[in-house]
Amino acid sequence: MKGQIQIKVTKRSPAYWRVTFDHPPLNIFGPEMLPQVNEIITALETDEQVKVVVFDSAVEGFFLIHLDFLANLDDLAHLPPGRTGLHPWPEMLGRLSRAPVVSIASIRGRATGMGSELALACDMRFASREKAILSQFEVGAGLVPGGGPMAQLTRLMGRGRALEVILSADDIPGDLAELYGYVNRSLPDADLDGFVDALVGRIASFDKRTIMDTRRLVNVAGLPSDIEIESGWNACVASMARPATQERIKELIGRGFCRPGEAENRLGDFVGKHAPSMERTQ
Amino acid sequence: MKGQIQIKVTKRSPAYWRVTFDHPPLNIFGPEMLPQVNEIITALETDEQVKVVVFDSAVEGFFLIHLDFLANLDDLAHLPPGRTGLHPWPEMLGRLSRAPVVSIASIRGRATGMGSELALACDMRFASREKAILSQFEVGAGLVPGGGPMAQLTRLMGRGRALEVILSADDIPGDLAELYGYVNRSLPDADLDGFVDALVGRIASFDKRTIMDTRRLVNVAGLPSDIEIESGWNACVASMARPATQERIKELIGRGFCRPGEAENRLGDFVGKHAPSMERTQ
Amino acid sequence: MKGQIQIKVTKRSPAYWRVTFDHPPLNIFGPEMLPQVNEIITALETDEQVKVVVFDSAVEGFFLIHLDFLANLDDLAHLPPGRTGLHPWPEMLGRLSRAPVVSIASIRGRATGMGSELALACDMRFASREKAILSQFEVGAGLVPGGGPMAQLTRLMGRGRALEVILSADDIPGDLAELYGYVNRSLPDADLDGFVDALVGRIASFDKRTIMDTRRLVNVAGLPSDIEIESGWNACVASMARPATQERIKELIGRGFCRPGEAENRLGDFVGKHAPSMERTQ
Repeated sequence: MKGQIQIKVTKRSPAYWRVTFDHPPLNIFGPEMLPQVNEIITALETDEQVKVVVFDSAVEGFFLIHLDFLANLDDLAHLPPGRTGLHPWPEMLGRLSRAPVVSIASIRGRATGMGSELALACDMRFASREKAILSQFEVGAGLVPGGGPMAQLTRLMGRGRALEVILSADDIPGDLAELYGYVNRSLPDADLDGFVDALVGRIASFDKRTIMDTRRLVNVAGLPSDIEIESGWNACVASMARPATQERIKELIGRGFCRPGEAENRLGDFVGKHAPSMERTQ
Repeated sequence: MKGQIQIKVTKRSPAYWRVTFDHPPLNIFGPEMLPQVNEIITALETDEQVKVVVFDSAVEGFFLIHLDFLANLDDLAHLPPGRTGLHPWPEMLGRLSRAPVVSIASIRGRATGMGSELALACDMRFASREKAILSQFEVGAGLVPGGGPMAQLTRLMGRGRALEVILSADDIPGDLAELYGYVNRSLPDADLDGFVDALVGRIASFDKRTIMDTRRLVNVAGLPSDIEIESGWNACVASMARPATQERIKELIGRGFCRPGEAENRLGDFVGKHAPSMERTQ
Repeated sequence: MKGQIQIKVTKRSPAYWRVTFDHPPLNIFGPEMLPQVNEIITALETDEQVKVVVFDSAVEGFFLIHLDFLANLDDLAHLPPGRTGLHPWPEMLGRLSRAPVVSIASIRGRATGMGSELALACDMRFASREKAILSQFEVGAGLVPGGGPMAQLTRLMGRGRALEVILSADDIPGDLAELYGYVNRSLPDADLDGFVDALVGRIASFDKRTIMDTRRLVNVAGLPSDIEIESGWNACVASMARPATQERIKELIGRGFCRPGEAENRLGDFVGKHAPSMERTQ
């Protein structure tokens, strides 16, 4: 797969870019996608005309999901830190939240793990009522999520609902995501694209400098600090290294995790049903 | 208009004051209203019996809207700073949030710009489901909002929804305002006054010292610092001074902005449709 | 009553404990319950197998309500401070929020005063749509709430709704509690137990270390500091000492407060209707 482009950038106009995840059948996050995301964010940071970027998916049923644990992950661990000293993944997310471009996640299908984290790093999230499912499945696999959902979800929906979302590791459909503030709104699937396009059209017609000066002040009130994000990342790395977690992931892979089928189609149920024997204290 | 009173104070009882914006036909915020607001807030700060103040409107269709850009704005720029060093407008809002009186915005009609900012500085906001429309239209006019909505809305509804409200510069009707937490609740228009009166009656029957000691602690958790508000105000002033913004406002005025008619009746649509040519990069 | 156990701990499994308030007829919080709560929290802090604890009630109509003002409260005032220097009550709540166990309030009946504060200290709150009523009634009795609701509710629902809940001192039924984020969700009464059990089953099957490392990071973003809580407690103690408050509580007791009947069955109405004469400024 290496070298293949799985994330497509379409410039609908100089001001309106569309970034489409196109890595069938699961839109699973392969390590090779990290440099692609990096390149796109760098382009968004440096282009002078782009005002709005929409992230969406070309793969039925999946917006963007978690890391591909079947891939060779060695490269990932050894990536040099970014400019802020953070690991490249959380750093890219923070750069997206601060880049001089308004970012919108248009969510159809499953957004979990890194897919949910990318959506949370965007400025806004709109979900298909029928087809969107958001989650942070990690705790169900013995992992602390690494890309900031503890910091982001707590700020969006408060401590109680954030703990439910993250500790249950369960699927959150569109309407519940709207109730909890996980997404801005959940819209009928047939209306989602039209709604997002109209919103982009409005914002793209406004003055870029004004937009960015305004957003900087929302970020002051709404974005977590790098230190808080780093603390979450370190907990993620530590959890990944534990033998119990390695066992847990191996067991889940044995049952279909990271491959097309029921495991990924119903990930919330899957991690809930297949509790590792070591944990069967109930 | 100078010298005329456009904001009426009615004391329904020593404990319950009503402040009514009565500046037909638009309840537009003329520079001459600033000293009137200041006087009212000073009275609220110093009166020993008032416990609750309700802000409402006597003008059909408009709660309180933005600055009157057709007025002579020179005085506004040269007003001496208030006690905290902030510009008088954001300072008055902060004083209202901290004054020893519970403040409630009862919103019928449009609340945009300074009208929305005043509502956000109140302790609570209740909206007519059929008749309330809230917005921060400023970004659509090339302006960074100056009275704190980046700080306030982000704390009320989270970063994602705050960015949508402020960057879309679009109309937010009562029910969406309730979903997003822009208002406490949206009520059927026929129930709004009765609901607010009953709530005021309750609170006004309680001990003032207890109310204020309690509210001070909510403010610790929920109010932005003066420095954050000042940063927003400075961004507003800088945006106002840009030639592109001046052009933009001139163009909008040419199309009916700040005068009765379709522009103000449908301000969200208006700023979305009439994008300045310089910004037509799409 | 002293020495009697009013809070029952059932271990459904080593990982899943149930703490049931069983102090009929009101589940009123007697001073003798404080050491019982302390003992339970200590057990939750030190047990190595427990992963989830659910708080519920065995008393029809009441989850857990306020302090019993008919009891001898001398002991309460003279309790030595806890490890953090806080009064034992707010300290226990903070310990619960940080204990290495996921805590869930399953709310049927009234949760007010300390009952609401305990629910807010839990990680999650689920409410019976038909039978749950939450409130902080204190301001209606001339008291500043002492167990942190100004800090907690403001973080859960924003300043405007928190001020409404606390300053109105009124009853908040299940659905409104859900809209405001006072609870995670309001569920049909018939579904509540099944929902909570399923959620507990999931979480109890996951790795305890992972759960706790994850929750610690949500706490960083979502829990108030001890200093903020202490400030609220001090305001509570000061309000309690005021003669006006003592008069107010005496008057309410004369009308049925703290005893079975209409006063406690409709506490929101009760404190709203019986305003003390000294406060009749309307």
